[in-house]
Amino acid sequence: MKLYDLELSGNCYKVRLFAALAGIELAIVPVDFLAGEHKRPPLIDLNPWGELPILADGKFVLRDSLAILVYLAARHGDERWLPRDPAGLGEVMQWLSTSANEIQNGPGAARLVDKFGYRLDKADTVRRAERILALIEAHLAGHDWLALGRPTIADCAVMPYVALAPEGGVPLDGYPNIRRWIARLKALPGFVGMPGV
Amino acid sequence: MKLYDLELSGNCYKVRLFAALAGIELAIVPVDFLAGEHKRPPLIDLNPWGELPILADGKFVLRDSLAILVYLAARHGDERWLPRDPAGLGEVMQWLSTSANEIQNGPGAARLVDKFGYRLDKADTVRRAERILALIEAHLAGHDWLALGRPTIADCAVMPYVALAPEGGVPLDGYPNIRRWIARLKALPGFVGMPGV
Repeated sequence: MKLYDLELSGNCYKVRLFAALAGIELAIVPVDFLAGEHKRPPLIDLNPWGELPILADGKFVLRDSLAILVYLAARHGDERWLPRDPAGLGEVMQWLSTSANEIQNGPGAARLVDKFGYRLDKADTVRRAERILALIEAHLAGHDWLALGRPTIADCAVMPYVALAPEGGVPLDGYPNIRRWIARLKALPGFVGMPGV
Repeated sequence: MKLYDLELSGNCYKVRLFAALAGIELAIVPVDFLAGEHKRPPLIDLNPWGELPILADGKFVLRDSLAILVYLAARHGDERWLPRDPAGLGEVMQWLSTSANEIQNGPGAARLVDKFGYRLDKADTVRRAERILALIEAHLAGHDWLALGRPTIADCAVMPYVALAPEGGVPLDGYPNIRRWIARLKALPGFVGMPGV
């Protein structure tokens, strides 16, 4: 399986992190993001969204980090990371939505402004970041992991842009539960980091 | 099963639509949104996000429209709407991410500004809406449905705020494939609408 990858992308890191934790082998294909390789053929034909990561498993191609997490976890077959029962699936899915919406457009977007010069409303991204970090902080007061009382793809989906929030000018000092949760993830066998995490 | 619901919410409508198409019975509990009932106990205890919809199946509670779709589809047991194989699951998941991110923050947010007076960057929401509508339009040139060649929860997740885009000042005239796809959904047995759809 090939992962078209950008080292500095938190979305790509979600996939590299989960693959490392679950022991799934991926062939990493670095993409020249600054040169816009992902906006041109052949990559734009694999993902018309013009974004990374992209997973290619033979002829089967997936865009979107969360879809790739779900695919890899289901293909891996170990229900530890993504259960099949409706309640477990729903509980994990809540956090995949949070990752796609509040995290992507909060701390993820704040970092795009500060680190990559994207022209977004910085104050709005910081406000969104602080709202979602407070909600996660409160949730983690009573939970070691986001869902199901154990590490799942929910943690792999949410952690990267939370841990990278300081790169968007959003410090984590006021969120001790979040910092302890990140430390728990870092202590898992197989954990890999990325620059900034 | 109880659905804490707001009739004018596209997110609540996703759930009502899928339940109607799949023949799942829900007890609809209307929430007084304008009075902020969802921001106070007991609802804020069910969903600390302070948002609707919320599903309560006995003691099991889920926030987030997409998590509820996944739960209901898996609980319903009919793989037509959400398959269990990794590739099918991944393909549907791509569109749930699109719904949570690009749709919510594009046409969904544009409508929040025009219809409910939210103070967001309107030009940004319209730009996001036009980008994602163009991508969906292109996808539907070669597909009758978003995923798997048949109606799935992907269509239920994405259609509502696409069909409601004109309420955010984003007309659908330039998107004939999208209009045909909405018409196909409307022709499905059991289809229900909402104001504006």
